[in-house]
Amino acid sequence: MNPFFRILFIFLSGLSFHALDAQEWTRVAPGIWKASVGAIPDISLLRAAGAEPNLEALEQLPEVEFPLPTDRISLEVIDGQVHLRFPLEREEELYGLGLQFKTHNQRGRIMELHVDHYGGADNGRTHAPVPFYVSTAGYGVLVDAARYLTVYAGTAIRVEADDPPLLQDRNTDKQWAAQPYSDAVEILVPAAGTEVYIFGGPSMLKAVQRYNLFNGGGCLPPKWGLGFTQRVPTLYSDSDILQEVADFADHDFPLDFIGVEPGWHSMAYPCTFEWDEGRFPDPKGFLEKLRERGVRANLWLNPYLSPRGSMYPEIKPLSGSHTVWNGLVPDFTLEKARQLYKDHFTEHHIDLGVSGYKIDEVDGYDRWVWPDVATFPSGTSAEEMRQIYGLMVQRMTADWFREKNRRTYGLVRASNAGASSFPYVVYNDYYSHKDFITALINSSFIGVLWTPEVRASKTSEEWLRRMQSVCFSPMAMLNAWADGTKPWTFPEVEDEVRAVAQLRMRLLPYLYTAFARYRSEGIPPFRAMQLWENSDFRSEQRGGNLSSDRNPYGEYASKEIRYQYLMGDAMLVAPMFEGEESRSVVLPPGKWYDFYTGAYVGAGEVITVTPGLDQIPLFVRDGGIVPMIASRNQMPGPDEILPLEIRHYGQSPGSSRLYDDDGTTFDYERGAFSWADLRVKRQGNQLRGSMRIDNPEFFHYREAVNWVFMTRP
Amino acid sequence: MNPFFRILFIFLSGLSFHALDAQEWTRVAPGIWKASVGAIPDISLLRAAGAEPNLEALEQLPEVEFPLPTDRISLEVIDGQVHLRFPLEREEELYGLGLQFKTHNQRGRIMELHVDHYGGADNGRTHAPVPFYVSTAGYGVLVDAARYLTVYAGTAIRVEADDPPLLQDRNTDKQWAAQPYSDAVEILVPAAGTEVYIFGGPSMLKAVQRYNLFNGGGCLPPKWGLGFTQRVPTLYSDSDILQEVADFADHDFPLDFIGVEPGWHSMAYPCTFEWDEGRFPDPKGFLEKLRERGVRANLWLNPYLSPRGSMYPEIKPLSGSHTVWNGLVPDFTLEKARQLYKDHFTEHHIDLGVSGYKIDEVDGYDRWVWPDVATFPSGTSAEEMRQIYGLMVQRMTADWFREKNRRTYGLVRASNAGASSFPYVVYNDYYSHKDFITALINSSFIGVLWTPEVRASKTSEEWLRRMQSVCFSPMAMLNAWADGTKPWTFPEVEDEVRAVAQLRMRLLPYLYTAFARYRSEGIPPFRAMQLWENSDFRSEQRGGNLSSDRNPYGEYASKEIRYQYLMGDAMLVAPMFEGEESRSVVLPPGKWYDFYTGAYVGAGEVITVTPGLDQIPLFVRDGGIVPMIASRNQMPGPDEILPLEIRHYGQSPGSSRLYDDDGTTFDYERGAFSWADLRVKRQGNQLRGSMRIDNPEFFHYREAVNWVFMTRP
Repeated sequence: MNPFFRILFIFLSGLSFHALDAQEWTRVAPGIWKASVGAIPDISLLRAAGAEPNLEALEQLPEVEFPLPTDRISLEVIDGQVHLRFPLEREEELYGLGLQFKTHNQRGRIMELHVDHYGGADNGRTHAPVPFYVSTAGYGVLVDAARYLTVYAGTAIRVEADDPPLLQDRNTDKQWAAQPYSDAVEILVPAAGTEVYIFGGPSMLKAVQRYNLFNGGGCLPPKWGLGFTQRVPTLYSDSDILQEVADFADHDFPLDFIGVEPGWHSMAYPCTFEWDEGRFPDPKGFLEKLRERGVRANLWLNPYLSPRGSMYPEIKPLSGSHTVWNGLVPDFTLEKARQLYKDHFTEHHIDLGVSGYKIDEVDGYDRWVWPDVATFPSGTSAEEMRQIYGLMVQRMTADWFREKNRRTYGLVRASNAGASSFPYVVYNDYYSHKDFITALINSSFIGVLWTPEVRASKTSEEWLRRMQSVCFSPMAMLNAWADGTKPWTFPEVEDEVRAVAQLRMRLLPYLYTAFARYRSEGIPPFRAMQLWENSDFRSEQRGGNLSSDRNPYGEYASKEIRYQYLMGDAMLVAPMFEGEESRSVVLPPGKWYDFYTGAYVGAGEVITVTPGLDQIPLFVRDGGIVPMIASRNQMPGPDEILPLEIRHYGQSPGSSRLYDDDGTTFDYERGAFSWADLRVKRQGNQLRGSMRIDNPEFFHYREAVNWVFMTRP
Repeated sequence: MNPFFRILFIFLSGLSFHALDAQEWTRVAPGIWKASVGAIPDISLLRAAGAEPNLEALEQLPEVEFPLPTDRISLEVIDGQVHLRFPLEREEELYGLGLQFKTHNQRGRIMELHVDHYGGADNGRTHAPVPFYVSTAGYGVLVDAARYLTVYAGTAIRVEADDPPLLQDRNTDKQWAAQPYSDAVEILVPAAGTEVYIFGGPSMLKAVQRYNLFNGGGCLPPKWGLGFTQRVPTLYSDSDILQEVADFADHDFPLDFIGVEPGWHSMAYPCTFEWDEGRFPDPKGFLEKLRERGVRANLWLNPYLSPRGSMYPEIKPLSGSHTVWNGLVPDFTLEKARQLYKDHFTEHHIDLGVSGYKIDEVDGYDRWVWPDVATFPSGTSAEEMRQIYGLMVQRMTADWFREKNRRTYGLVRASNAGASSFPYVVYNDYYSHKDFITALINSSFIGVLWTPEVRASKTSEEWLRRMQSVCFSPMAMLNAWADGTKPWTFPEVEDEVRAVAQLRMRLLPYLYTAFARYRSEGIPPFRAMQLWENSDFRSEQRGGNLSSDRNPYGEYASKEIRYQYLMGDAMLVAPMFEGEESRSVVLPPGKWYDFYTGAYVGAGEVITVTPGLDQIPLFVRDGGIVPMIASRNQMPGPDEILPLEIRHYGQSPGSSRLYDDDGTTFDYERGAFSWADLRVKRQGNQLRGSMRIDNPEFFHYREAVNWVFMTRP
């Protein structure tokens, strides 16, 4: 980071405005403004996450003005609670406000943002209830409060509204709207004060980029994190797991890391974090044997400490008043509690070779996590603790690996604002394939990653369709903890499942670059169609049906683009679901091509595709460039030099960039990385590709380069 | 009320304890104690309801000691919020905590008590989220806070629990409980202080009686309120309604009052409270014509004022910051707002002959009522206003009728603690017949009345079964606002529907007496089996399956007695549901008899009954006495003298009391009422009945008395 900006940022963030004047917006980073209202509490989401803004990257984004009329923003403390109001225009749609599973546009909805398991309704109780929204008008709003916020996203209507709804008589007007038009977002923060951030665009994507960069940029996983992972049944022993690894090899199936489930603990729910001597008599030897086979181990845990755990006496005074399954809830806002966990985890797991964690049960369910009446020794309230617990466990565990200069990539059930840079993917116990895709899309608005994990299926078709989706997500995971399913559980589609898993392996250069841009530019690697620049998906989809005098969100909801998303710079993914032989796909402006054949499929239009069972529909934009490697079952190590296949689609020239580094350490932060420029130019009626590599010592695709022009002239 | 106790009460209630000492329990009435914690807010549920305790009646209940160990109660203000804790013993079950629709015992559940429409889950958001619970250990707890309380009803578990759960290892113990045992109820009150009341028993019923009597005693409806009521389609005009009344007469069907739906307003949603000149050109004449036919009119409304209403300019400065359907939300904590409504309603409705109101939309739905960010001119918070709005509108409208010395009996969609004496029945838009019966049963724990209203049915069987249920509820209502159904909509069961409606009419003396005891003794007229005295329904049902080391509430839930309830002194009602030809009925101890035949059916056991389609199963206890009148279609007027049929069931002697008064005024408060003692004695091997009447001038069943001994010797 540019030292000047770092100092400027520290200076600016030190200023806090306790006045009620809502107009005190201070620019804290390029295109990002902050205001404070009331007495600012010690605990906030961003402070819990602790990320440092990437000001250098933010400087690269276009200059923007403050995006809202300040006189229509209101930040007030009323009766000990913060009331916030931000204006809305008729045409705006709102995205974000947490990890939703059934809806995209949140305008017209009410969210009670509360870290919790997802209960089947998009009501704000979810695994990542991030209090951040982006508008189609090209800006974002973040409320940095570790509280249960109530967000009226265009529902509350003031007597003195700037743009009031039509008055209608239900007795006589059949168009009477139960939910009239509202010209504002209003938010109740049950706290004496809070800080609020506004992110400029000018596009939705730019606002999202600013949000992610302000939170340190997106996470760059280790390369092995982008390989395939299997979680084994809960009581598998070391030898069961080694046999599982051998079975994967026998089936010629990709496997980079394996999830070790609760049985590794000497007691679980709550946990000891100590290896069970019966199932894992020699953890170090077991982990070494795994590594010899090229496989890493990810350990399941929940952070609640069993009375049988050796840390219990020391942690007890550093814990909350209430238990979770008889386990202590450590107060991780206390340095000493973090240190005790760090010492134990480092000695017993990380130094033995464990590659990461699956952090379970930090979300809720109210009936077993600590209640809101719990107290903690630091004075942090139960409510604040609920909102930040997932953030804190992500942050501390990630730091432990970072201190070893080893990247990790794990799973977490709860996250929140400020998490963009955390190497964790959110998951849950819900299991709707379609809603998993909705969540994957929504994750791109709020700076988290999501995996539509596969567990079981009733039919081979469902199995294959789910496997195809998860291979086009941040983590390609089969979670067999409960029933021991394998990728080859449905032999009739084993080849097709293997093919899509290996396709993911082949796409490593493309996918890793997408994550590199997440880190360095804040662009989510998997993202909503609404984040396609220079296009208005909303209005294209809405057509002429909108009556802005009437319930507009109803219209919006019915017109959402569902179940398709962008991956990286050039690709569009349109998963198939069981029972569907065809589907429609909305193509952004410009020409689009079939990934598999290079054939032209359409331009800025809605197409219907009828892929076979063996294919997940994938499309590439005109001029799109997709670098790939050969099929393999484990991601390349730091010293492997590989050949590269670079595909080009369409008939237009194009350019792209390809990122590389050692794939496992943080040396990239000290310059040990490389960007290659990929260019396709037209020479006569021929297309020709060229690659220019910066810092070739950190670039591993040097053995040979094969340009493939997928689209016939 | 005895003046001494009145003075004592005023004195005691004037003392408020702002100290944190949880042990300052003050006896405020016989068997009722109060404690205060923190700074007591101006607004509370009981203060909004404004009922005056019936200390004389409370004096009649048995003396009891403070029912809980005070050292296990904790009342604290932590970080600006009230934390309450009350102990639980292993065997206790908890009832109440609002109007639930799917569950009875609340132990093991978490409720967020919040006035709202019922959304399909018993999570605390409901039409009457009364923060009062009664325990099978024979006491009750009320938190008098107009706030969104979170109640952990035996779910939160402290590290330092008095009675901690078993520690279990999920890795090895198949009995591992996701929700371990908790020894406390914990409640979070998001306010700086609150008052808490403890009600002694010694039984659950006695605790409920104390609660109701403390809130002024239950409501005594006018006799006509216990007749049949039909709500007409929304746009019916005066002549449509008079035709409807004629149709009821043609069909020989009971009708005492008719519900006039939104079309009576010149504009509705929001409302003007002014008659539509097209549909109701002569409201006074229309109401007079109705009364000539013996029918009263109940007017639908929601309290939100249309900009087209004449009161708008005056009410605007007395209203909240936000609208409901463009309507003002009057701040009824302000005397002036109440007065403006009173003047208008009195002049335009009550003085013209309107008999009551249906108060709609005071519950929620969040998307259209005022948001929690709304402010009100009195300084009352939006949250407080949400919790008390239904109470306030009930109270003020009831007072207007009372000032005219006319009783009313209406409908309301939201209520709360303190409402026992309000002449209003809660209803909603949900429509599960079974869940409606669950709500009817649960209403008896929390001092509200509920109607399982009939709207439509898919089959004649469903229609008849629903009609049977609603005739054994506080209000026998067919609500045809949407589709114009009539009692004879299914001609194949018209006779059976008429029969049950007329049976309700015949039961007037019995039912009216049940309500009189609700008023004078606090005994709910329709009530849960758990309120049967001297019996432990819980343990009878639970059998030997309980493992108190394991998830006990799971056991409880599966063993609940569902879908049967007590009515009045002697009867048990067991509704039938569509598709069911038989059902089981749990009989309390002692012998029980079929209502229709007098035949013995069982004693303290579970029986299976197979009634025909024409009967709702009804049972009478041994020695039970059921006074009835002849079949009729409208309830008797204040001067009618009628013959009486007094049924006796079983072979035991028995005694009962029969209440009467003019049925329409409040003169009973000034002594204008009568109780008759009904006695059945054995003389040789004959049973003989006798009746002794107090104040016979107020007793209308004097024409003839016919004792019917239903059970053959």
